Amino acid sequence: MTDSYAVGVDLGGTTVRVALVDRTGRIHHEAAYDSHVERGPEPVIDDMARWVGEVIAAAGVPRERIVGIGIGSPGPLSPSRGIVHKAANLPDWINVPLTRAMHQRTGLRSIMDNDANLAAYGEFWAGAGRDVDNMVMLTLGTGIGAGVVIRGELLHGHFENAGELGHWIVVPNGRRCSCGQRGCLEVYASAGNVARRVAESIRDGEPSILSGLVQKGVPFGAREVVQAVQDGDPLASRLWDEACYYLAIACVNIQHAYNPTRIVMAGGMSKAGDVLTQLVQKHFELLAWNLYDDYPEIRIAVLGDDAGVIGAAGWAWKAEQEGRWAAEPAC
Amino acid sequence: MTDSYAVGVDLGGTTVRVALVDRTGRIHHEAAYDSHVERGPEPVIDDMARWVGEVIAAAGVPRERIVGIGIGSPGPLSPSRGIVHKAANLPDWINVPLTRAMHQRTGLRSIMDNDANLAAYGEFWAGAGRDVDNMVMLTLGTGIGAGVVIRGELLHGHFENAGELGHWIVVPNGRRCSCGQRGCLEVYASAGNVARRVAESIRDGEPSILSGLVQKGVPFGAREVVQAVQDGDPLASRLWDEACYYLAIACVNIQHAYNPTRIVMAGGMSKAGDVLTQLVQKHFELLAWNLYDDYPEIRIAVLGDDAGVIGAAGWAWKAEQEGRWAAEPAC
Repeated sequence: MTDSYAVGVDLGGTTVRVALVDRTGRIHHEAAYDSHVERGPEPVIDDMARWVGEVIAAAGVPRERIVGIGIGSPGPLSPSRGIVHKAANLPDWINVPLTRAMHQRTGLRSIMDNDANLAAYGEFWAGAGRDVDNMVMLTLGTGIGAGVVIRGELLHGHFENAGELGHWIVVPNGRRCSCGQRGCLEVYASAGNVARRVAESIRDGEPSILSGLVQKGVPFGAREVVQAVQDGDPLASRLWDEACYYLAIACVNIQHAYNPTRIVMAGGMSKAGDVLTQLVQKHFELLAWNLYDDYPEIRIAVLGDDAGVIGAAGWAWKAEQEGRWAAEPAC
Repeated sequence: MTDSYAVGVDLGGTTVRVALVDRTGRIHHEAAYDSHVERGPEPVIDDMARWVGEVIAAAGVPRERIVGIGIGSPGPLSPSRGIVHKAANLPDWINVPLTRAMHQRTGLRSIMDNDANLAAYGEFWAGAGRDVDNMVMLTLGTGIGAGVVIRGELLHGHFENAGELGHWIVVPNGRRCSCGQRGCLEVYASAGNVARRVAESIRDGEPSILSGLVQKGVPFGAREVVQAVQDGDPLASRLWDEACYYLAIACVNIQHAYNPTRIVMAGGMSKAGDVLTQLVQKHFELLAWNLYDDYPEIRIAVLGDDAGVIGAAGWAWKAEQEGRWAAEPAC
């Protein structure tokens, strides 16, 4: 079995990644292509199945050496039933039986989970959490996704939607979130929202070295905000600091919720590295309790854009080892 | 084995409860006595061991029909090592090896856990959560304790101190908590703090039908506040409503953290029944997201003061069934 592989698929609204991953978490062959999700689910699934076949063929691995496919998808979804209920970035995906569809097209056993969960599992299995048993990952992108690993298991909960920490309310009666709540963590601390708030403040008349971009209508993201912070821009520094403060509150609440060994930060904002973690750590130490020294470590993710496919494949390996593939459909 | 029993012990700062519980969660014999914790750990443990013996003898059950002892204690503590690290209400308890001490004194295998955890496990096993797999309980007393049951298991986390939800920060830069943090849930929503805030506001000059008690220096608690709410007192109603609002925020954050089927409210404040749950539910519905209908039910606990001993005994039954008693010491 040393030459066996699992296939990891990371289904995103813009890009789909497919990778052949060995049992140690190493990628042996990988492909990425445009999702074209505007076509609706069937062609997207056809493409995924075709690319799975192509990656296997390109790697020259016989089919019988493939243990199965793990798929990370936006949700809400049901991992146990293999169904995507709906997804903001996947038009017309309503209760799509994704694992069954992939099995029918590829002949390979399939398992799926929330994309943020599988990215967290990837870092846990083969990245920034490989030496711990309990880990929480926050993926700081357009929104904030999260995955919770407890004693090596992903936490799902009764409705299979646990760990939606981007929608923890951190500011009572705070700013409106697209989810319908107010004061969600992701409104204050996602990469997308930090950049948006800098742009809003510039439009409201605050001076900033990013004013020129706003005047020219050039969109910018967390990367430009971090650069402005490093260049000493007061507006960018204030809103970056505020984001790190709310992330530190989230870390305190993660500590008390799950008591993990480690909290890992991933996604666009995490590319700031120390500029992110040192500030979050500083706020965390000012906020934290003194009853017990059960403080988690705060670290940056290490797998980058590969976390999703590695975690998806790792979850497939785990299904193989534990014999818990979903029941196979009658094709 | 139909006539076997587990002993549940609930060690509190004021009262210790000891009960003989069958495998269905029914109490067959019970005792409660004053803790006298001012004497330090040794005499308190001696008393516990003696009362365990007396309850067994009084019930007329032979020793060989006792599977073991489950003990709920204030923490922080280590369930896996059987050690109470320290406890606010237990003077001089510093790293006390409680399960070993009880085993040495009684000859019975012992297991222990956080008191709020075992009260939650009691409701899960034999009370308000007996028909579900995933449940979170908030115990609204002097502070707020919590226990998290996931697929029938108590959540502990790496440092064995998970589920300290009374110390979730719900108000950034809010009121100071005794734990060293600011804005903790329990500062706004525990029974003790709601009563304290009513008294403070009266001293600050706000009118209330409870003013007479404050003037006479008569202490009061959540019961009197609830009565004042039912009598239409504006001050009590405002602070009660605020407590329920913050509990509803906690329920939203519990939903996203653990996705449980049910959230159970216990402790002094829960005696308000519908006066509590209907208001928490109202706020919850106003606060909650609309992305997915993964809403937990919010219910009142049903076991009252027995939840702790029933849960402690239930945890002992589980240890017996799963063969995971702590290693027995060389006596």
